[in-house]
Amino acid sequence: MIQDFTIHTFLEKLSSKSPTPGGGGAAGLGGAIGAALGEMVVNLTLGKKRYADVEEEMQSFLEKLETLKSEFLRLADEDEVVFVPLAAAYGLPAVTVEEKKHKEEVLEAHLLAATLVPLMVMERALETLDIMEILAEKGSRLAVSDVGVGVQFVRSALLGAKMNVSINTKSMKQREKARQLQDRADKLAEDGIGKADTIYARVEAALKAE
Amino acid sequence: MIQDFTIHTFLEKLSSKSPTPGGGGAAGLGGAIGAALGEMVVNLTLGKKRYADVEEEMQSFLEKLETLKSEFLRLADEDEVVFVPLAAAYGLPAVTVEEKKHKEEVLEAHLLAATLVPLMVMERALETLDIMEILAEKGSRLAVSDVGVGVQFVRSALLGAKMNVSINTKSMKQREKARQLQDRADKLAEDGIGKADTIYARVEAALKAE
Repeated sequence: MIQDFTIHTFLEKLSSKSPTPGGGGAAGLGGAIGAALGEMVVNLTLGKKRYADVEEEMQSFLEKLETLKSEFLRLADEDEVVFVPLAAAYGLPAVTVEEKKHKEEVLEAHLLAATLVPLMVMERALETLDIMEILAEKGSRLAVSDVGVGVQFVRSALLGAKMNVSINTKSMKQREKARQLQDRADKLAEDGIGKADTIYARVEAALKAE
Repeated sequence: MIQDFTIHTFLEKLSSKSPTPGGGGAAGLGGAIGAALGEMVVNLTLGKKRYADVEEEMQSFLEKLETLKSEFLRLADEDEVVFVPLAAAYGLPAVTVEEKKHKEEVLEAHLLAATLVPLMVMERALETLDIMEILAEKGSRLAVSDVGVGVQFVRSALLGAKMNVSINTKSMKQREKARQLQDRADKLAEDGIGKADTIYARVEAALKAE
């Protein structure tokens, strides 16, 4: 699992020409880094007199962010799991009519699986941004800059994952299904960029105002 | 050093309320992930007949990206090195006139050091984007989506680091010096966002056109 690698080893594997971990695994890790920064802000807010009013809300964020962090890491691993059979499917023979039909069916199934994983990364990114938005407003002022950094990582997870949705929907034969999935990714990206950039701008304004 | 942690341990430390690693360390790591994805694209391009014309250029990128990756990791560690004495300086006594003067001088020196590290992350981010721009155009078409993912990570390093420049320049007493450093960060962020978003849009267009 990705989380068991040292950062040195992960970066070596990422740099290599071996297809996994690649952009998909990196996107999942980006989401986990963003969620972890959110947790840090929550941990710096909890137990502080000044923020006693939001103690309960912060506690619920801690659990949600912990779940999101695990989910992002699971999806980073899952990206590898769905990629291997997809790469193998591209190598299937396609000489006879039966072989062509079989290859097309197998490819289609694996392309769908390889699209759904980054789409889930994008959905988790939106959920994380919803929490970051409240953290930027109610979290400890001492850690507001970390909300800004976290938001950028979640944004990179969102747009990194979108790349992987696009390369897979492009090759799908069921064009209507492919379009629906791509539309969903485009909408998530648009909403997420808007949300991330708004939160970051608010954090910048908060830093200047202090 | 950050690179010796497992990803699990790094994320645990990042999530905790302990101040390091925090946003600054994460920003450095983001840059290293972006540079590593660039290296992956280079490694998938090198030795391929179709890309024989750019073999030499790719070889030079490999060396540059390897250096940038190491630099980002070194700056992630350095962020911790400069933060510890800065946090200690905030705790210095400031009762007598001499104490106040001494605290102000010590704080000012550590604030400057803590500003220069993220500023260097931003400069390295721009250098990485310059290479990614050419990779998006000349690198293996099979890995163009990884250029798009890498660019997002470099962008998160750039804007994550900018947060840390801002929180430190804000507290500096030498306002003219602080303004110069902040102007430099603002300019790097503006240039980098423009560059990153242009490259990402080009990769998206290339994916659709194929």
